[in-house]
Amino acid sequence: MLVGVLDGTETLWESREASTGQSEDELVELLVREVSEAREARPDATAVGLGIPATMDHDRGIAVSAVNLPLEDLPIRDLISERVGLPVFVDNDANVAALAEYLFGAATGKPNVVMLTIGTGIGGGLILGGEVYRGATGAGAELGHTVIQADGPPCQGNCPNHGCVEALASGTALGREGLAAAESSPDSALGKLLAAGEKIDGKAVTVAAIDGDETAVGVFGLIGSRLGVACSSFANIFQPDAIVVGGGVIAAGDLLLDPVRREVRERALNPMNKTPILEATLGNDAGMIGAAAMARTELEKVGS
Amino acid sequence: MLVGVLDGTETLWESREASTGQSEDELVELLVREVSEAREARPDATAVGLGIPATMDHDRGIAVSAVNLPLEDLPIRDLISERVGLPVFVDNDANVAALAEYLFGAATGKPNVVMLTIGTGIGGGLILGGEVYRGATGAGAELGHTVIQADGPPCQGNCPNHGCVEALASGTALGREGLAAAESSPDSALGKLLAAGEKIDGKAVTVAAIDGDETAVGVFGLIGSRLGVACSSFANIFQPDAIVVGGGVIAAGDLLLDPVRREVRERALNPMNKTPILEATLGNDAGMIGAAAMARTELEKVGS
Repeated sequence: MLVGVLDGTETLWESREASTGQSEDELVELLVREVSEAREARPDATAVGLGIPATMDHDRGIAVSAVNLPLEDLPIRDLISERVGLPVFVDNDANVAALAEYLFGAATGKPNVVMLTIGTGIGGGLILGGEVYRGATGAGAELGHTVIQADGPPCQGNCPNHGCVEALASGTALGREGLAAAESSPDSALGKLLAAGEKIDGKAVTVAAIDGDETAVGVFGLIGSRLGVACSSFANIFQPDAIVVGGGVIAAGDLLLDPVRREVRERALNPMNKTPILEATLGNDAGMIGAAAMARTELEKVGS
Repeated sequence: MLVGVLDGTETLWESREASTGQSEDELVELLVREVSEAREARPDATAVGLGIPATMDHDRGIAVSAVNLPLEDLPIRDLISERVGLPVFVDNDANVAALAEYLFGAATGKPNVVMLTIGTGIGGGLILGGEVYRGATGAGAELGHTVIQADGPPCQGNCPNHGCVEALASGTALGREGLAAAESSPDSALGKLLAAGEKIDGKAVTVAAIDGDETAVGVFGLIGSRLGVACSSFANIFQPDAIVVGGGVIAAGDLLLDPVRREVRERALNPMNKTPILEATLGNDAGMIGAAAMARTELEKVGS
């Protein structure tokens, strides 16, 4: 968990990291403690924004469900607000990361943005007409669960689907395909790592690819082209001003994005085949910055 | 081409059909003539709305390209406006059909609507937050060119993609799969039609399915489940209040939509797996009604 104090820009007045708890109660206690402590840096803070990796009901302030956190139908907005005495606004972590990249990052000045955050899974955020698009109750923009191969492998987490782009092009898939490539190419750097007993995961493939191992670069070609299939659909659906890719896997930069760009150029309709595919620039801070920006936007709406 | 005169509702004061011409000049002449004649029914008409099956640049009023009409980079808004002496507003035909279903049809009162119009191809329209979403320059919402099978068959028309839902679940695909089913099931009603020398196209499959031929019903099961794969992606992406399906193929009603619903229920995330899948109610008039409604909305924006 990242905690920060921000003014109206991306300027951080204070930031720290904390580990999330094991239960709903622990998580709420931790949030209350961290927000209260962070507030000491700027006692004049006027609102709290939370970006949570969960299916959120934005309007009612409820965390509906989550794969990696102990959350289920938790009225987190009101719980935290009562305890800290400030207005609290909540949103999905990928939505606020998209907002941050739109306001301060790779997509500044571009009102229609599709953002993918690729880590263990693939999170999605949408800025349409300069505003976060959340769907009917705030559970939308699950872009990672766009099918690219109807008869593909089962998806992960709580997704019952098959052949989602998350199943085929997430960091998890990168590690899986990297392991398969290491096994079939024992002379490659990746293969030697495996023979030496090292764990072949997304991070190992990324490091090997950046170091120039052709087998690892080839794995990024495979993952990038799958991601590019999804991005060609997003380009046709949204005609966005940009598609922004962030998350841990983006450490590989153009090794990942060039295959994406090639696929979009070859598959999408004219003029959507020219959609810029950009690397996110705010890194891990995107969620924290975007949560604050979201709270500020919502506070202004309430006030107006 | 359908031509109508409407007030602020779906009430038609006059309507007629006309055939589109063979060249840009003929098309423009025809539009000027039809609009001028239609105007005699209500000389107090204040604006003209055109819904055109083409990639449109909404803001600049240009028809960029079209598969079935002689249009290329035609500044159709200004050409018609100069000739008829009224403000003209233009949009893609699927966008205005979606607007009509949202204002007066199947999706009344639902602010987030995904609409698919299934005929020879699959057109798409999006109502997000109660407004038509068009993308950066108005070329967006090409929902038919969402990939459902990355290694699927080549798409049709000017689409360079493979495995689009249009390639696999359009009226054209329905006819193609119907022909294959007729060949492999000579004892079915569809097979007997083929043996009698009848043409097996989407319409023939629809008629046979409605008449209860199990082979034809099975073809709708196949097409509907493919459409359902795309709709599960749209449900996850948009969390819409409804997905509305229109176009010629919807004559089959629940024979098409029940397999779509099953697929969305089984594939989409909770709560998007409960997205209502609705039959369009305005039929062929949706485009005409929506074009008028779009012109009215745009005129109000200009005036405000």
